[in-house]
Amino acid sequence: MPQVGVVIGSRTDEPLIKACLEVLQSLGIEYELSVLSAHRTPERVMEYARGARERGLQVLIGAAGGAAALPGALASWTTLPVIGVPLPTSELKGVDALHAIAQMPPGIPVACVAVGEWGARNAAYLAAEILGLKDEKVRQAYEAYRQGLRQA
Amino acid sequence: MPQVGVVIGSRTDEPLIKACLEVLQSLGIEYELSVLSAHRTPERVMEYARGARERGLQVLIGAAGGAAALPGALASWTTLPVIGVPLPTSELKGVDALHAIAQMPPGIPVACVAVGEWGARNAAYLAAEILGLKDEKVRQAYEAYRQGLRQA
Amino acid sequence: MPQVGVVIGSRTDEPLIKACLEVLQSLGIEYELSVLSAHRTPERVMEYARGARERGLQVLIGAAGGAAALPGALASWTTLPVIGVPLPTSELKGVDALHAIAQMPPGIPVACVAVGEWGARNAAYLAAEILGLKDEKVRQAYEAYRQGLRQA
Amino acid sequence: MPQVGVVIGSRTDEPLIKACLEVLQSLGIEYELSVLSAHRTPERVMEYARGARERGLQVLIGAAGGAAALPGALASWTTLPVIGVPLPTSELKGVDALHAIAQMPPGIPVACVAVGEWGARNAAYLAAEILGLKDEKVRQAYEAYRQGLRQA
Amino acid sequence: MPQVGVVIGSRTDEPLIKACLEVLQSLGIEYELSVLSAHRTPERVMEYARGARERGLQVLIGAAGGAAALPGALASWTTLPVIGVPLPTSELKGVDALHAIAQMPPGIPVACVAVGEWGARNAAYLAAEILGLKDEKVRQAYEAYRQGLRQA
Amino acid sequence: MPQVGVVIGSRTDEPLIKACLEVLQSLGIEYELSVLSAHRTPERVMEYARGARERGLQVLIGAAGGAAALPGALASWTTLPVIGVPLPTSELKGVDALHAIAQMPPGIPVACVAVGEWGARNAAYLAAEILGLKDEKVRQAYEAYRQGLRQA
Amino acid sequence: MPQVGVVIGSRTDEPLIKACLEVLQSLGIEYELSVLSAHRTPERVMEYARGARERGLQVLIGAAGGAAALPGALASWTTLPVIGVPLPTSELKGVDALHAIAQMPPGIPVACVAVGEWGARNAAYLAAEILGLKDEKVRQAYEAYRQGLRQA
Amino acid sequence: MPQVGVVIGSRTDEPLIKACLEVLQSLGIEYELSVLSAHRTPERVMEYARGARERGLQVLIGAAGGAAALPGALASWTTLPVIGVPLPTSELKGVDALHAIAQMPPGIPVACVAVGEWGARNAAYLAAEILGLKDEKVRQAYEAYRQGLRQA
Repeated sequence: MPQVGVVIGSRTDEPLIKACLEVLQSLGIEYELSVLSAHRTPERVMEYARGARERGLQVLIGAAGGAAALPGALASWTTLPVIGVPLPTSELKGVDALHAIAQMPPGIPVACVAVGEWGARNAAYLAAEILGLKDEKVRQAYEAYRQGLRQA
Repeated sequence: MPQVGVVIGSRTDEPLIKACLEVLQSLGIEYELSVLSAHRTPERVMEYARGARERGLQVLIGAAGGAAALPGALASWTTLPVIGVPLPTSELKGVDALHAIAQMPPGIPVACVAVGEWGARNAAYLAAEILGLKDEKVRQAYEAYRQGLRQA
Repeated sequence: MPQVGVVIGSRTDEPLIKACLEVLQSLGIEYELSVLSAHRTPERVMEYARGARERGLQVLIGAAGGAAALPGALASWTTLPVIGVPLPTSELKGVDALHAIAQMPPGIPVACVAVGEWGARNAAYLAAEILGLKDEKVRQAYEAYRQGLRQA
Repeated sequence: MPQVGVVIGSRTDEPLIKACLEVLQSLGIEYELSVLSAHRTPERVMEYARGARERGLQVLIGAAGGAAALPGALASWTTLPVIGVPLPTSELKGVDALHAIAQMPPGIPVACVAVGEWGARNAAYLAAEILGLKDEKVRQAYEAYRQGLRQA
Repeated sequence: MPQVGVVIGSRTDEPLIKACLEVLQSLGIEYELSVLSAHRTPERVMEYARGARERGLQVLIGAAGGAAALPGALASWTTLPVIGVPLPTSELKGVDALHAIAQMPPGIPVACVAVGEWGARNAAYLAAEILGLKDEKVRQAYEAYRQGLRQA
Repeated sequence: MPQVGVVIGSRTDEPLIKACLEVLQSLGIEYELSVLSAHRTPERVMEYARGARERGLQVLIGAAGGAAALPGALASWTTLPVIGVPLPTSELKGVDALHAIAQMPPGIPVACVAVGEWGARNAAYLAAEILGLKDEKVRQAYEAYRQGLRQA
Repeated sequence: MPQVGVVIGSRTDEPLIKACLEVLQSLGIEYELSVLSAHRTPERVMEYARGARERGLQVLIGAAGGAAALPGALASWTTLPVIGVPLPTSELKGVDALHAIAQMPPGIPVACVAVGEWGARNAAYLAAEILGLKDEKVRQAYEAYRQGLRQA
Repeated sequence: MPQVGVVIGSRTDEPLIKACLEVLQSLGIEYELSVLSAHRTPERVMEYARGARERGLQVLIGAAGGAAALPGALASWTTLPVIGVPLPTSELKGVDALHAIAQMPPGIPVACVAVGEWGARNAAYLAAEILGLKDEKVRQAYEAYRQGLRQA
């Protein structure tokens, strides 16, 4: 049963989130990838986010470019922690998505990470930190990774 | 029966949209003002936007600051034209809202106008131009306004 | 008889607006493409925009990069709704055109969409939403497209 | 025993983080506030972050302006989730801090929220979402808050 | 007979251009001030700029904020040198006007100066430099000013 | 005897200013190209600018990237009109040079044009407009060019 | 005999550099304050910077806003280390000066510090670090200050 | 024994700092290159910076992209002068690193240079200027370089 739900708005964003999935896998975190658009398929986003906790998901990761409403839309329908990854897919190359994801209004937080692949990877590591608060196996895997960084 | 639905996410944004309402009124356009938040009350946004056309609304205006998802959220639930007004309510003073509103992904358009009061007023004038395509009274009122500008 | 007038300032911008034309065509909206520059051929812009309504045009779309005065110039000469598409053709890659198009002064609105191809496509969809208020065929075509998005 | 450690770099930043503390308190989350500077007192940051997990802290919140290294410095010394609040205290009014906090390199994530008070409050709500994964009381308090938002 | 035509789009911009007029006067340059809007009164801009050379004007100065089309509109209708002053009148505080004035497309130049009062004053000094190429009195007045700067 | 002095700070910038030289030539304006750096060879810039008027030059054009001090340095040593072309040669791609050239302090104006090739060409056209105030041949050549634009 | 030469371009900038002077004084560093403008009095900048080393100065600090050429101009005439403080005096509030000071071309370095008072103070501390390499008294004073920060 | 310690956060940044090393070598300045990450290996940064003065290092150069905490982290642990080079390695292409390095808080200065290769080279030249205050050989080598620039 997946612990982390990774959501992108379009199949074309899949290569940009690949690094996230690889990190999750490397840490032994089960995840699922869904293609749901805040703007094109808002019902699906609503249904997905509303049902996420019951389905056992504990962290959601939404990646989007441009107006990048996806992470905030997920957050609007759930009280699970939502991580947002700004993607550099528009002509403004991610500064727009950074603003649209980081500048959430009070009450509905999104955890924004860096634009693009840096953020895709860190979304997974942040998910590991969050899951690691109650999942000893994930904590140990992430700490081993961090230990490895220190020795690299 | 209102032709234009003006939506803000919070009562605190009301003074910022006042100029919009005054312009609508000056042009004889019937409107309604609603407080609905894309992030805090997404169901209400969904219900409002989904029912808008049937209730006779023809143009929606959404004003928001920061991540400013409101206009795009309205647009995701309706095929009526949606005008978005970026508000300078966050610490980034509207450049964030401009990005979040203008940079909508293909398929779900929002008509973005200027940040703040300039945009609040122009949202109403743009609504008048749109309504004026089928409502002769509105067209004449707007053309009279434009004529007045030329003679000021 | 075209319903939508698409205007670019230079032949070199034509590839950037191609997606707009394709969307218009796919929705059965008749359009015409004109090359008129706000700065190099202001008379032509004036004549085009002034005569647009009488010729039956209902929506104008202007696409421009850099100082990007074209949409605003069209708007200054007509009371038809004008949609502006910022193009990333200058060295500043469209942030300049976004500012020049979105930040119109009160009284003369332009409906700004996203920079580049995203905006080119959304300009057409926005035109469809506007036309759809009185043209049932266009409304149905656009709603079918939106329905298709939801099922993709 | 505090669950959340809130860290600011200077006493002068305390008013800017007050809203965060109020939200934590309103949700019944125990917290502590520390004044530690990534640049002026790096040892203290190191000691604080290194000992945080053992002392029972589960989430760290770091708020900083300008180069805003504090959240990243905390994250470098711990594997607990760290939330970063960009403050508008420099002459660049927070766009610098947003960049310095959001753009963390791969491996050491920070969860960035909005600049200023919006972010201060959302840092607390995000902490509640994270804690709520294992602390039923916090989850219920946060869900009651969200329910309240929906009914406001 | 005025040598320099100073144009603003709105009476409300008059205080922002006052420093320009004072400098022109201090250098003994005759000028006229007109209120003409690129967007609200495009005919007047056209007539003004088209007739400027015949009326003896040698340099035009246009000051505008936001989309700031005025200097470019003047330039589109004349081959006199046009100086553009970006004004900080919109919520984006002049960065928009800077882009809209500086980023003119090839063929129709505008001489952009600094945002706000700095630019208002420098527009006058730049006009003096241009006029000074053929008007010995203006050249001497400006050189006296520059000499004064060196001795201040 | 050249009328226009074009100055770049480095041989590597020569391709970026080529369009400027071509326009000058096409309009029959005599020019000279010099390589002088505001930072690396300030004496030469001083000598060049100080002697420019006596040598018969009437307009100076300085093109530079990054901190882009060259146009302002030329202006500090002469009372001839100086046109500045921001080049996209640094990693910030010209937004830095735009700021460094446009934001000149009161008293020492520089006429800033667009970043890169657009500006390189417009610097030449602006020079033609300035020279055309006293040189009928240049004025006619430029007006013929503008006439050609209108008919293209 | 002063060790540090602090230079501003205008008396009006004096309050903005006051914090710098106070820090220098508190560390027992002798300094002098000069008002010299890169653009208005370039000869004086040249003479000052050229003679600086012989007069015993070891570090120069230049503070400027807008195009902010002063630090780079000082650097162009000397091989002493030059520290640049971007001031928020233009309408763009220092982002322009940051670009103009930080983005120096290869060969002529300037040590850029933060915009405004933060930078004014850090310019003095950076000067202390540089002087401290050979001046034991300054080194000890600065280390005492840093020690004090750690214990505050 | 090296005089300058160059530090990068990752092997992948090595090509970006190569120009710095070449300049140091060309000026006869001994240096060492270390790979230490402010976020991934903070202990090593601490140990390196703390021991730097005793090991005879006199200037540190830290190069980093994105959140770019490395130069500030070095500075937090030493009172040697630290030069920071913003690298364009993130999707925001260095504007983030420029903010994160230049906007250091009062008390802990970093000498920021330009983004990318320009800055990499200038970091070395700035180090030469600093070292040249007490090392006659370095001063002469740098002055010979500057003399060469003047004659190029």
